[in-house]
Amino acid sequence: DFAKIDHHRTLRTGFPEVIWGPGKTPKQIVQIMLKMQESFQRDNQIRPIIATRIDPAVFDQLKKQIPELEYYSVPKICLLKTGSLPQKKGKIGIISAGTADIPVAEEAALTAELCGFSVERLWDVGVAGIHRLFSHRELLSQLQVLIVVAGMEGALPSVVAGMVDSPVIAVPTSIGYGASFEGVAPLLTMLNSCAPGIGVVNIDNGFGAAILAGQILRT
Amino acid sequence: DFAKIDHHRTLRTGFPEVIWGPGKTPKQIVQIMLKMQESFQRDNQIRPIIATRIDPAVFDQLKKQIPELEYYSVPKICLLKTGSLPQKKGKIGIISAGTADIPVAEEAALTAELCGFSVERLWDVGVAGIHRLFSHRELLSQLQVLIVVAGMEGALPSVVAGMVDSPVIAVPTSIGYGASFEGVAPLLTMLNSCAPGIGVVNIDNGFGAAILAGQILRT
Amino acid sequence: DFAKIDHHRTLRTGFPEVIWGPGKTPKQIVQIMLKMQESFQRDNQIRPIIATRIDPAVFDQLKKQIPELEYYSVPKICLLKTGSLPQKKGKIGIISAGTADIPVAEEAALTAELCGFSVERLWDVGVAGIHRLFSHRELLSQLQVLIVVAGMEGALPSVVAGMVDSPVIAVPTSIGYGASFEGVAPLLTMLNSCAPGIGVVNIDNGFGAAILAGQILRT
Amino acid sequence: DFAKIDHHRTLRTGFPEVIWGPGKTPKQIVQIMLKMQESFQRDNQIRPIIATRIDPAVFDQLKKQIPELEYYSVPKICLLKTGSLPQKKGKIGIISAGTADIPVAEEAALTAELCGFSVERLWDVGVAGIHRLFSHRELLSQLQVLIVVAGMEGALPSVVAGMVDSPVIAVPTSIGYGASFEGVAPLLTMLNSCAPGIGVVNIDNGFGAAILAGQILRT
Amino acid sequence: DFAKIDHHRTLRTGFPEVIWGPGKTPKQIVQIMLKMQESFQRDNQIRPIIATRIDPAVFDQLKKQIPELEYYSVPKICLLKTGSLPQKKGKIGIISAGTADIPVAEEAALTAELCGFSVERLWDVGVAGIHRLFSHRELLSQLQVLIVVAGMEGALPSVVAGMVDSPVIAVPTSIGYGASFEGVAPLLTMLNSCAPGIGVVNIDNGFGAAILAGQILRT
Amino acid sequence: DFAKIDHHRTLRTGFPEVIWGPGKTPKQIVQIMLKMQESFQRDNQIRPIIATRIDPAVFDQLKKQIPELEYYSVPKICLLKTGSLPQKKGKIGIISAGTADIPVAEEAALTAELCGFSVERLWDVGVAGIHRLFSHRELLSQLQVLIVVAGMEGALPSVVAGMVDSPVIAVPTSIGYGASFEGVAPLLTMLNSCAPGIGVVNIDNGFGAAILAGQILRT
Amino acid sequence: DFAKIDHHRTLRTGFPEVIWGPGKTPKQIVQIMLKMQESFQRDNQIRPIIATRIDPAVFDQLKKQIPELEYYSVPKICLLKTGSLPQKKGKIGIISAGTADIPVAEEAALTAELCGFSVERLWDVGVAGIHRLFSHRELLSQLQVLIVVAGMEGALPSVVAGMVDSPVIAVPTSIGYGASFEGVAPLLTMLNSCAPGIGVVNIDNGFGAAILAGQILRT
Amino acid sequence: DFAKIDHHRTLRTGFPEVIWGPGKTPKQIVQIMLKMQESFQRDNQIRPIIATRIDPAVFDQLKKQIPELEYYSVPKICLLKTGSLPQKKGKIGIISAGTADIPVAEEAALTAELCGFSVERLWDVGVAGIHRLFSHRELLSQLQVLIVVAGMEGALPSVVAGMVDSPVIAVPTSIGYGASFEGVAPLLTMLNSCAPGIGVVNIDNGFGAAILAGQILRT
Ligand SMILES: Nc1ncnc2c1ncn2[C@@H]1O[C@H](COP(=O)(O)O)[C@@H](O)[C@H]1O
Ligand SMILES: Nc1ncnc2c1ncn2[C@@H]1O[C@H](COP(=O)(O)O)[C@@H](O)[C@H]1O
Ligand SMILES: Nc1ncnc2c1ncn2[C@@H]1O[C@H](COP(=O)(O)O)[C@@H](O)[C@H]1O
Ligand SMILES: Nc1ncnc2c1ncn2[C@@H]1O[C@H](COP(=O)(O)O)[C@@H](O)[C@H]1O
Ligand SMILES: [Mg+2]
Ligand SMILES: [Mg+2]
Ligand SMILES: [Mg+2]
Ligand SMILES: [Mg+2]
Ligand SMILES: [Mg+2]
Ligand SMILES: [Mg+2]
Ligand SMILES: [Mg+2]
Ligand SMILES: [Mg+2]
Repeated sequence: DFAKIDHHRTLRTGFPEVIWGPGKTPKQIVQIMLKMQESFQRDNQIRPIIATRIDPAVFDQLKKQIPELEYYSVPKICLLKTGSLPQKKGKIGIISAGTADIPVAEEAALTAELCGFSVERLWDVGVAGIHRLFSHRELLSQLQVLIVVAGMEGALPSVVAGMVDSPVIAVPTSIGYGASFEGVAPLLTMLNSCAPGIGVVNIDNGFGAAILAGQILRT
Repeated sequence: DFAKIDHHRTLRTGFPEVIWGPGKTPKQIVQIMLKMQESFQRDNQIRPIIATRIDPAVFDQLKKQIPELEYYSVPKICLLKTGSLPQKKGKIGIISAGTADIPVAEEAALTAELCGFSVERLWDVGVAGIHRLFSHRELLSQLQVLIVVAGMEGALPSVVAGMVDSPVIAVPTSIGYGASFEGVAPLLTMLNSCAPGIGVVNIDNGFGAAILAGQILRT
Repeated sequence: DFAKIDHHRTLRTGFPEVIWGPGKTPKQIVQIMLKMQESFQRDNQIRPIIATRIDPAVFDQLKKQIPELEYYSVPKICLLKTGSLPQKKGKIGIISAGTADIPVAEEAALTAELCGFSVERLWDVGVAGIHRLFSHRELLSQLQVLIVVAGMEGALPSVVAGMVDSPVIAVPTSIGYGASFEGVAPLLTMLNSCAPGIGVVNIDNGFGAAILAGQILRT
Repeated sequence: DFAKIDHHRTLRTGFPEVIWGPGKTPKQIVQIMLKMQESFQRDNQIRPIIATRIDPAVFDQLKKQIPELEYYSVPKICLLKTGSLPQKKGKIGIISAGTADIPVAEEAALTAELCGFSVERLWDVGVAGIHRLFSHRELLSQLQVLIVVAGMEGALPSVVAGMVDSPVIAVPTSIGYGASFEGVAPLLTMLNSCAPGIGVVNIDNGFGAAILAGQILRT
Repeated sequence: DFAKIDHHRTLRTGFPEVIWGPGKTPKQIVQIMLKMQESFQRDNQIRPIIATRIDPAVFDQLKKQIPELEYYSVPKICLLKTGSLPQKKGKIGIISAGTADIPVAEEAALTAELCGFSVERLWDVGVAGIHRLFSHRELLSQLQVLIVVAGMEGALPSVVAGMVDSPVIAVPTSIGYGASFEGVAPLLTMLNSCAPGIGVVNIDNGFGAAILAGQILRT
Repeated sequence: DFAKIDHHRTLRTGFPEVIWGPGKTPKQIVQIMLKMQESFQRDNQIRPIIATRIDPAVFDQLKKQIPELEYYSVPKICLLKTGSLPQKKGKIGIISAGTADIPVAEEAALTAELCGFSVERLWDVGVAGIHRLFSHRELLSQLQVLIVVAGMEGALPSVVAGMVDSPVIAVPTSIGYGASFEGVAPLLTMLNSCAPGIGVVNIDNGFGAAILAGQILRT
Repeated sequence: DFAKIDHHRTLRTGFPEVIWGPGKTPKQIVQIMLKMQESFQRDNQIRPIIATRIDPAVFDQLKKQIPELEYYSVPKICLLKTGSLPQKKGKIGIISAGTADIPVAEEAALTAELCGFSVERLWDVGVAGIHRLFSHRELLSQLQVLIVVAGMEGALPSVVAGMVDSPVIAVPTSIGYGASFEGVAPLLTMLNSCAPGIGVVNIDNGFGAAILAGQILRT
Repeated sequence: DFAKIDHHRTLRTGFPEVIWGPGKTPKQIVQIMLKMQESFQRDNQIRPIIATRIDPAVFDQLKKQIPELEYYSVPKICLLKTGSLPQKKGKIGIISAGTADIPVAEEAALTAELCGFSVERLWDVGVAGIHRLFSHRELLSQLQVLIVVAGMEGALPSVVAGMVDSPVIAVPTSIGYGASFEGVAPLLTMLNSCAPGIGVVNIDNGFGAAILAGQILRT
C-alpha cells in the first residue's frame, strides 16, 4: 500500500500513466505497473504505462517480471504498451541546443508521442552558430508549441521566443561544467528571458515539458 | 537612438507594446512611448501602449509630458490608450495565494485584459486553508488557462494543477521574509512541483505570465 | 576513548540510545554498542540500542562481532534489542508525500516505535492529488502529532497543518532532481509555510522528527 | 473581496485571529480587522485580533480608523482587544541569546500570552558565556516547552536541548552581519543540531514558534 | 598616507589614472586627485585623472575643492582633464542589450575614449529581437574588439561571439529583478557561453572591460 | 534585565568590556554602559568601556545621557574612558589592501590600542601593485602578529602569509560590488589560502581580529 | 543528424575544429569526427580535429574506430591530425599556481599549440611564495598574452596583472576542497580582481582561454 | 619542473615540508619528495617530509618507490621520516565535537606533533551534552592554544572560547548531511561566533589549523 494510484485523472486527461523511477525499488515499480494495468483492464481502457529515469540495470530487473516491457535507452524510458492513445491534433517542435542535450529532448519527444502528439525534432542548433537555427525559420512558424532544451548558457529559448508567436517551453539541462552548476545557469537564463511568453520547467524535466505542451494543445 | 522599437512583432502578435520601466529615465520612457505612438499612427493601427513597474513619482513626471496617460497604482502599470485591442476568445483565471500577492496578480490581470482577454480573479485562496480553493472547483474547470500567483511557500500551483486539466502558469512572488529569500523559496517549490503541466516564470513576473497565457489561448 | 557515552540522559528521557553511523568505522560502532550495553547492564536497565544510517555492507561487518544484531533495510537502522521500552500513550501519524520518501518516513516510524509509541503510517498522499489526503481527514484528526515527510516541492506539511490542530513536524527529503538541490527546495517550502504550527527538521532527518514527536507526547 | 477570512479555524483552535502585516495596505488591514470583529460578534465570540510586523507609521494610520487599537512597539504587534482568551495550562520558556534578539523573542512571548499561555522570559544568555544559562538550570526544567531565539552563530538551542527533556523550538534571527547572511547562519546551525528534539521555524518567526508551542501544550 | 599612488604604471601603460570612488570620503578623493596631478606635473606628463562610481551629491562636494572637475552623469564618471591622451589605433565596439544597460555600457565607452580609443556604440540590440543585431553584421566585422553589455538573461555575448572572429568581452549588469539575483544570472550565462573566445568581467564593470579592450588593442 | 553583564571575564582577560551596538536601542546601550561602569567601580577597577558599530546619530543620543562619551567616526567606535589599560608587550601590524577598507582596519587598530597593544598601520598595499607591500618587507618581519584587511578579491593575506613567519589574521571586508557579494568573495579567498597559518574572522570583523591578536600576544 | 557541423567558421578563424566530449556517446564522437574530416577533405583543407574532455576509456573506444587518433592524457585531449595549422606570430604565456592545476593549464597550452601559437609554460608559481613568480619577471614581459590558471584562493591573476601590461586571461580551477566549492572561490577572486585588464573564463576552461588568447593575438 | 620547491622557508620556520596530495599523480608526489630529501641532505638538514590527503591506494604506489615511507591511516598522512624536529615549548589542545570528526582532528594532531609540539587530545565532547566538556575545564585552562574541530552545527568553538582565555582555532568539518551542506553550516557558525578570539580555517583543514597553532606558540 506504498503507492496510491489515481487512474481517473489519467483517463480524464487522455495522457498515459507515468511512474517516476528514482527512489523506487524495482519491486515497487513492477507492483505499481501491474496494479495500473489491472485498473485499466477493469475499466476496459487500453493505454500505455510508462516509467521514466530507468537505468539499463533497473530495466533488466523489471523485464524479468514483465517480459513485454520495452526500453528506450536514450531517454531512459520504459514502456508497457498495453495500447496506444489516439493521435491528437497539433504539432510540437522540440529543439535542442547541443548534441549532449538530446537525452532530455528525447524524454520530451517520446513522452509527447506516447501522449498521441506529432513531434518535430531539431537537434544541435544552439546560439553560438545562430544561422543554424535561422535556416529553419519557416519550419518553426508551422509548429503550435515549442519545447526548447538547452544546457550551458541556456540562451536558445530567448532567441526562439523572439522569432515565433507560439508558446515556448524552456527546459534547462544539467549539461555543462563549472559555473553551469548542474543546470542552474541555464535555469536562471531562461527565467530571466527578456522575451515574454516562455514557461520554464525544472532542470532536465523533458517529461514535464511534454505534458505542459500537451495541455496547451488541448486548450 | 537608445531604443530600437520593433512594432512589427507587436502588430503580428496582436498584443500591446510594452515598455519595462526600471533602469530607464522618465525622459527615455516618454521618448519611447511617443515614438511608438507615431509608428502606430503611421501604420494606421490603434492599440494600447503600456509601461510596467512605474513608481507613482515616475508616473507624475511622465504625465507632465503625456497628459492623457493613465495609471493603475496596484500593478504599477501606466497606459497610453491610443485604442483598445479587440476582445479575444477564452478566459484566463488568475489566482492569488494571499492578499499581499495581489500587486503581482493584478499585473497579470491587467496585462491580460489589455491584450483583449477576459479574466477571472480569485484572491487569497492559499494552501493553509485549502477548502477556500475547493469551494471554487467548478469555476476553475471552466477556465482555459490558469495563472497562479504565490509567495512564501509557493505551494498553490501544485495543488491547482492536480485539480484541473488546463495549463497552469506559476508566478512566484517576493512576498515573505527570512528563508523565502526574496522569492527563491516559492520559485523552487514551483519548479519542483510533482504535478506536471506547470510552466514557471520569473519571480514577480505577472506580465510575462499574462503574455504566455495569451499565447496559449491563441494556439 | 573516542566516544563519551552519556547513558544517564537516555535513562532520564526514556528513549533508546542511538548511534549515528556515518563517519564511524565499523570497529568504532561495535565498541560503542558494547560499551553502552555494558553500562545498561551495570545499571540493571534493559533498553534497545540502535544505530542509524547503516549501509548493508557495514551491517554485515557489525553482525560478525555482535551476532544478535537485527537490520531494517528500508530505514537502514540496526538494532541491538537488549530489551524493549514500555508502550507509551499517544499516537504519531507519519505521512509521506511519495513512494520515494518512504525510507526517511520509515526512519521516523521505526524510531518512534522503538521509543514505545504507536504509529500510523500514511504513504503516497502528496499534494498533486490532494483528494488522496482528504479521504483520510478523519484519521488525521485522531493523531496527537503528525510527522509529514516530503521531497520535491515539499508542500504537503502546509496543507496538512491547515487541516489539523495538532503540532506538525515537517521533514524535507533529498528526493527529487535539478532545482530540488538535494532537499533545499522542500526545506525552504516548509520553513516558509504560511500555516503556523510547523517545526522543521534537517533534510532526511526522520530520526530527529521522531524524537521531537516523542518529546511532544511526553509534554 | 481580497481576503478570505476563516474564523472557524480560529474558534476551533482557541487561538486569536492573526493578520500578517507586510505587503498589505493600511486600508486592507483595517478592512480585514473589522470584518473579523464582525464575524466574531455575529457568533457571539470574544477574542483578540492581532496584526504582526506593523511599523509605527502604519500603526498611526490604522489607529485613525480603529481608535481602540493598541500597539506593542518592541515586537511590532498591533492588538484589537475585543476580548481575551481564557488562561491555559502549561508554561512556555522563551530564551534569547542576546539583547538584539529581543524583538523576535517578544513577538513569540506576546503571541503566546495573547493565546492564553504563561510565559517565562530569559534574555541574553548566549553560549559565549554559558554559565549565564547554567545558573538557570532549575528554572528550565520546570518549563513544558522552550522557545530559543538566537542570531549570529545560533548555537543556543543545541545547548539548551542537551540540558532539558522538553521539546525545543528554535528561532533563528537576522541579527548579525557579514557571514550571518541575514539569519542563514543560525538557521543552518539549528537545522544541523546534534541534539535531537528541536523543531526549527523561519528566520525571525517568533509568531510561528509561539503557535507551535501552543499546539504542543494542547496535545 | 591612506593611499599609495603608483603613477609609474600609469605612465608605462599609457592609460589614465583611475580612482574607484565607493568607500572613499570626498575628502580622500580630492586628496588623491591632487596628489596625482602633482606627480604628473612633476614628471612633466599631461594626462586625464578620472574617478568612477561618483554619485551627483559626491561630485558637488568634489567640485567645491577642484572647480575644473567635469561630470558625466550617465556613467557617473568624474574627470580632471589635465590633458588628453593621444589617439590610439583600433576601434572598440560597445554593444548593449537593453536601454537600461546603458549606464554600464557608457562607463566602458567613456573609459575607452579617455584612454584614446575610438568607440562605436550600438544600444538596445538584445536577443529577444535578434534581427536588430543582424542588421549591423557588417559594422560588427569592422571592429577589433567588442564589449557586450547585458543584464537579465545575458545571452547577447554568446550570439555576438558566434558572429564575429574578434575577441569579445562580456559585461553582465545588475539590471533585472527576481531570479537575475543582481546580475548573477547574466554572469553565469556569460561564463557558460558555448561560443569560445569570450572573457568575462565583474557585474557592472564597464571600466574593467574598457581597460581589457585597450590592452588587447595594444597587443 | 535585558542584558546579563559578565565583567569577571573582562577582568580576567585584561581587555576592555565591549558592547555590540546593532539591534540595541540607544536607551539599552546607555543602561548597559552605566551598569558596567558601576560594576567596575564597585570592584575598584578602572578600564575603558566601548561600544562598536555606533552610527553618528546614535552617538548623539548616547552623548546626551553620558556627556563624557567620546566618538571615533572612522571605525564608528564609542568610548567611555573610565580609565585606560596598562601598555602590553608586542606589536600588532594592521594592513589594509585599499583605502576603502580603512574603516574596518581602524576598528581593529583602535580596539587593539584600547586593549593596550602597540599598533603599526600600513594602508593601501593591495596585491594589484605588489611592490607597495614589498617595500615594507623589513617592517613586516618586526611585527609579532599581522591583521590583514581586504575586500574585493581578498588576496592580500595569502601573499603576506607567504612573506612572514608570524600568525596572520585575515579580515574580509564588504567593500566591492557585483560578484564580491558583500564580502563573500574575499572571505572564500581567505579560507582557501594556499599559505597555511591564516585564521579568518567574519566579514568586516575588525574587532574580533584585534581580540584574537591580543590573545595570541598573551600566549 | 544529431550534430550540425559548421566548418566554415573553422576555416575562417584559422583554428582547429573542436568537439566537446562530455554527454556524447563514443559513437557520436566518431561520427562527428569523420563527418568533419570528410568536409575538410572535400574543401581540400588540412587541419587538426580535436575532442576535449575525453577519458582514457572513451579514447580506447574511439581508437578502435579511428586507429590514427592520438591521445594526450594530462589535458585529456584527443587529436585527429589530418594536418597541422601554420605557425602564427606572438607567444602565449601559460602560468599555473600549483602542480594540481596542470591538467587545466595543459588543456590551454595544447589547444594554443594546435592553433599554431608558441607557448611558454610556467608551472607552480602560486602567491604563497610570490618570489617564485618574481624571478620570472623578465620572461613575463616578453609574452603577448598571459593565461593564468589557479585553484584554491585564485589570487595569482591579480598579482600577475599588476606586474605586466599585456591582457591576462584568468582560468579558475576546481582544485581545492571545502570552501573552494569546486572552483567558485577562485572564480569570484578573479572576477573581483582589483587589477583591471583581466578577462575570466569558466571554471577549468583551459580550452576557452586558449581560443580567447588566439583571438587576441590575431587582433 | 612541475613543482618549485621552497625549502628555505621550511628551514626558517622550523616546520616540516608538506605536500598537499590531491590532484597530483603518485609519480609527481614521489618526485617532489625525493627532490626535497635531496635538498635537505645537501644543506645537511634532517627533518620530516609529509604528504597529506593520501588515500591508502595511493600510499601503496608511493611505498613501492620509497620503501621507508610510513602511513597514518586515520588522518591519511604519509611520512618520510628523514629526521624529527626538536621538541618545542607549549601545548596544543585538540578537541573534537564527535567521533566522526576524529580524522580531521587527527590531521591537526599529527601535524602539530611532527612540528615538535606536545598535543592533548579530547574527543567527542560536543555541545549536545555540554557537561562532557565542562568536566575538563581545568585541563583546558592549561593549554596555550586550542584547536576545536566540529561538524554539523559547529557550535563547540563558541562555547570553548567563552570558557578559556587562550586563542581558539576553529575547524569546521564536512561531517553531517542535508543542510550541513558539506561543512558550510559549521563554517558559518564559527565565523559568526559571538565569542571573540576565534580564527577560522577552511572546512576539514586540520593541517592549516596545526600550522597556525604552531605559529602562535612561536610568537
Ligand atoms: N521524468 C520525470 N520528471 C518529472 N516528473 C516525472 C517524471 N516521470 C514521472 N513524473 C511525474 O511523477 C508522477 C509519478 O510520481 P510517482 O507517483 O512517484 O511515480 C507522475 O504523475 C508524473 O507527473
Ligand atoms: N539518523 C540520524 N539523524 C540525525 N541524528 C541522529 C541520527 N541517528 C542518531 N542521531 C543523533 O546522533 C547522536 C549520536 O551521535 P554520535 O555520538 O556521533 O553517535 C544521537 O544522540 C542522536 O541524537
Ligand atoms: N564590532 C563587533 N564585531 C563583532 N563582535 C563584536 C563587535 N563589537 C562587540 N562584539 C562582541 O559582542 C559582544 C557583546 O555582544 P552584546 O552582549 O550583544 O553587546 C562582546 O563581548 C564582543 O565579543
Ligand atoms: N574543453 C572545452 N571547454 C569548453 N568548451 C569547449 C571545450 N571543448 C570544446 N568546446 C566548445 O564546444 C564546441 C563544440 O561543442 P559540441 O558541438 O557540443 O561538440 C566547440 O566549438 C568549442 O567551442
Ligand atoms: Mg554543437
Ligand atoms: Mg490569507
Ligand atoms: Mg505518487
Ligand atoms: Mg551579550
Ligand atoms: Mg528593448
Ligand atoms: Mg588603491
Ligand atoms: Mg606548490
Ligand atoms: Mg557523540
